[in-house]
Amino acid sequence: MSKTRFTLGQLAELLAVDCMGNPDTTITGLATLASAGKGQLSFLANNRYQSALKTTQASAVIVRADKMHECPCDCLVASDPYLTYAKASQLFDQQRMQRREGGIHPNACVSESAVIGAETTIAANVVIGENVSIGRNTLIGPGCSIGDNTVIGDNCILYANISVYHDVTIGNAVMVHSATVIGSDGFGFAPSADGWVKIAQLGRVRIGDNVEIGAGTTIDRGALDDTVIGDNVIIDNQVVIAHNVTIGEHTAIAGAVGIAGSTRIGKRCTIAGGVGIVGHLTIVDDVHITVCTVVSQSINKAGSYSSGTSMQNTVQWRKNAVRFSTLDQMHRRIGALEKSDKPA
Amino acid sequence: MSKTRFTLGQLAELLAVDCMGNPDTTITGLATLASAGKGQLSFLANNRYQSALKTTQASAVIVRADKMHECPCDCLVASDPYLTYAKASQLFDQQRMQRREGGIHPNACVSESAVIGAETTIAANVVIGENVSIGRNTLIGPGCSIGDNTVIGDNCILYANISVYHDVTIGNAVMVHSATVIGSDGFGFAPSADGWVKIAQLGRVRIGDNVEIGAGTTIDRGALDDTVIGDNVIIDNQVVIAHNVTIGEHTAIAGAVGIAGSTRIGKRCTIAGGVGIVGHLTIVDDVHITVCTVVSQSINKAGSYSSGTSMQNTVQWRKNAVRFSTLDQMHRRIGALEKSDKPA
Amino acid sequence: MSKTRFTLGQLAELLAVDCMGNPDTTITGLATLASAGKGQLSFLANNRYQSALKTTQASAVIVRADKMHECPCDCLVASDPYLTYAKASQLFDQQRMQRREGGIHPNACVSESAVIGAETTIAANVVIGENVSIGRNTLIGPGCSIGDNTVIGDNCILYANISVYHDVTIGNAVMVHSATVIGSDGFGFAPSADGWVKIAQLGRVRIGDNVEIGAGTTIDRGALDDTVIGDNVIIDNQVVIAHNVTIGEHTAIAGAVGIAGSTRIGKRCTIAGGVGIVGHLTIVDDVHITVCTVVSQSINKAGSYSSGTSMQNTVQWRKNAVRFSTLDQMHRRIGALEKSDKPA
Repeated sequence: MSKTRFTLGQLAELLAVDCMGNPDTTITGLATLASAGKGQLSFLANNRYQSALKTTQASAVIVRADKMHECPCDCLVASDPYLTYAKASQLFDQQRMQRREGGIHPNACVSESAVIGAETTIAANVVIGENVSIGRNTLIGPGCSIGDNTVIGDNCILYANISVYHDVTIGNAVMVHSATVIGSDGFGFAPSADGWVKIAQLGRVRIGDNVEIGAGTTIDRGALDDTVIGDNVIIDNQVVIAHNVTIGEHTAIAGAVGIAGSTRIGKRCTIAGGVGIVGHLTIVDDVHITVCTVVSQSINKAGSYSSGTSMQNTVQWRKNAVRFSTLDQMHRRIGALEKSDKPA
Repeated sequence: MSKTRFTLGQLAELLAVDCMGNPDTTITGLATLASAGKGQLSFLANNRYQSALKTTQASAVIVRADKMHECPCDCLVASDPYLTYAKASQLFDQQRMQRREGGIHPNACVSESAVIGAETTIAANVVIGENVSIGRNTLIGPGCSIGDNTVIGDNCILYANISVYHDVTIGNAVMVHSATVIGSDGFGFAPSADGWVKIAQLGRVRIGDNVEIGAGTTIDRGALDDTVIGDNVIIDNQVVIAHNVTIGEHTAIAGAVGIAGSTRIGKRCTIAGGVGIVGHLTIVDDVHITVCTVVSQSINKAGSYSSGTSMQNTVQWRKNAVRFSTLDQMHRRIGALEKSDKPA
Repeated sequence: MSKTRFTLGQLAELLAVDCMGNPDTTITGLATLASAGKGQLSFLANNRYQSALKTTQASAVIVRADKMHECPCDCLVASDPYLTYAKASQLFDQQRMQRREGGIHPNACVSESAVIGAETTIAANVVIGENVSIGRNTLIGPGCSIGDNTVIGDNCILYANISVYHDVTIGNAVMVHSATVIGSDGFGFAPSADGWVKIAQLGRVRIGDNVEIGAGTTIDRGALDDTVIGDNVIIDNQVVIAHNVTIGEHTAIAGAVGIAGSTRIGKRCTIAGGVGIVGHLTIVDDVHITVCTVVSQSINKAGSYSSGTSMQNTVQWRKNAVRFSTLDQMHRRIGALEKSDKPA
């Protein structure tokens, strides 16, 4: 297997940044400042790591112009080194990503009514239902199941063992990681004297372009209307997205977040790991929610929101946790003291 | 593909409700009051949506008798419109559900000792172990794995890529969504001087009738006794059910709930999303637990239970979260003030 | 199917403990003290169950020497009955575990460049990529996908429908449960004027020896360096392990835990169910974190840590939760009262 290899000059051109130093320096990979060695390119995006810059063994480093002179080696000068690192990382992953055989594996089961675009790879053990449409240059990994009438765009990657139900729409350049489920039934039941009666989930899931969805995530189909994920939304692992949720463009959702039914989340929001959001809420654009917060009411104003307590040693915590259950009482006791404290 | 189509009169008969208006009105689908158009049936179950009733473009609406005269179109009069909507939704999903080819797909691997009932569909890439028994009119979706000695009843639907281990029992009319795992090992280990020693999980999982289990859920097998899910229990996505848990009939468990080992949950409970329940507890019948609550002790009385704090702007929250760690101190300071406040 | 069967004497020898009673007693299974019957072996590890010892119908019980005389039946005398039970449970599971056909199933797709060890079983619908190496006596269950260049050791068990990406290293005697994903991309994106730009995840996942990983868990590959799981780490179901996390030897992680990127967890830690740990933290050895705690800062000292509030009836809780948002104010009000309370 030949390794990916660029000269620093080639990288500067591909990344549209300035090369300071020897453009013939060979770069074979990326590494952090602390672990980089000969032939590796690193980056300084956060001043916290500035001390590591001085001692790095990297052959070159991506830096902002104001750090250029502190760099002990060649450098690429970029206005946003983190973004340039992101683009460089894609160059070094490209060769692996392109190693696709193309075509439909003989062990795949593709219905005759399905339409599969050019240069698209359908891996072994994939099952593709009736009237499915898959675009160009897309990869459907081993063991994926694609339900009837589902549409998947161009340049998508679905890794192994993903389950996409019927009537789902996935845009272009969407990446989905393994074990993720898209289009499962929403959790809808009517109570009756005989117990729960299932409400058939007749809506769909619609996913925009340039979306990434992590591993083990579940996105339920709508009950009547659709569940909608906007363009350039990024979703991490084991996120639970319930029926009829809508998520605005460019919003980022970290791991283990749960969003209950019919909640609408705006654009450019960031939702940290472990957050729980109850159903039927509206969260406006540009809202940031910190780790493990429980959101139980709509948020009408951009900003950062949080809930929960601080962490302590368990012995101390237990005393405080017990007092929490008397908080309203404490409030009233303070009020009484304040009243009696007033000069007569 | 011909669309599902009923007259309003047919629907009234099938749903056992009264038809007010033209019984020949053609109904081709269901929609919400706000989005319904010609040919669609809607419903009014919650008075919050009453204003949408007046302006709906639906061809017919399911309403209670007292709302009948506010309906601008034909209507079906039901004592419980939400339940009638649930039943109607099943009628409109039926045609899709019935489009099964039946029989065992040539790419499925079914052991010779397995018994498969009539009209049951085994999809492509299913693997079925020794001595498995599957009832009538059941669907095992693409990529499912069914372990040795497992029994699955009649009229079940297992969607794609579900993993059922050995010695699991699943009743009749059970629906399981993709990526769910039933019968994995409980998390049992004995500490030793050399590290953790695995406790083989020799119990089973037993699931009753009319159960629905969402996508990405995991239900562990018992260590010695069984893990038991009662009849008509409904379980949402990404729920974690540990070994030896028992869940009583008609209980509903929303997404991302975790229930630790050997906990017993009663009948007709509702457990909201994100709730965590520690092990070896008993929760009686008719308990309701609100979103993201941590249940760390048994609940002996029916009712509603909660934990956690309110959500705030992060800057304000941070101040309060810090004070939480002095709550016991604050309590004692109030006590001291009250003492000194008393008239001498 | 012949049942596993030992004499008590054989068990004493295999478990290296003393047999008190008839060594010819036939033992066909394990059970709890309360449910055991004739032919079954039970154990008393926790004095809470001592009353059940007197009435047990078990044929034999594993006890400490000091409980030997309270045992109404034969017994095995062990210094650590729980550990002896763990070892016994493995004996009774052995026969099932050994029922593997060996070899590569005709429906598996194994690349020609892959190397598969002796006595290893590759089940139906497994897909194995280029240059994969799998050791001896390992089982790769139905529907698993193993990416290019991945190395899996000897005596491993991967149950059905597991997705292992490329360039992952898994040690010896590792057990992984169904629907788990190892090596998916970390959640790394650079913001840009055009939205999120993906950072290719070029690191690997390295998993040590004697590790168990539950069902539905996801372990992301590193961005540049690797994600590392130490020897004898045990991980339960639906755990989220983000990129570049490292977990020290013998640490136990219960269900539904989430650990964000680049966090380092020490050796011999126990992390209870539902815990959330933010990124870039360091947690030293021998730290214990209680259920559903949110860890938002590094822990530099061994011990037990907690966060959250107590649970209450929802009506009472609501009052207290509201007061939480005035906690800092309450603190200052107490301070003011204390000041005015001081004798002039």
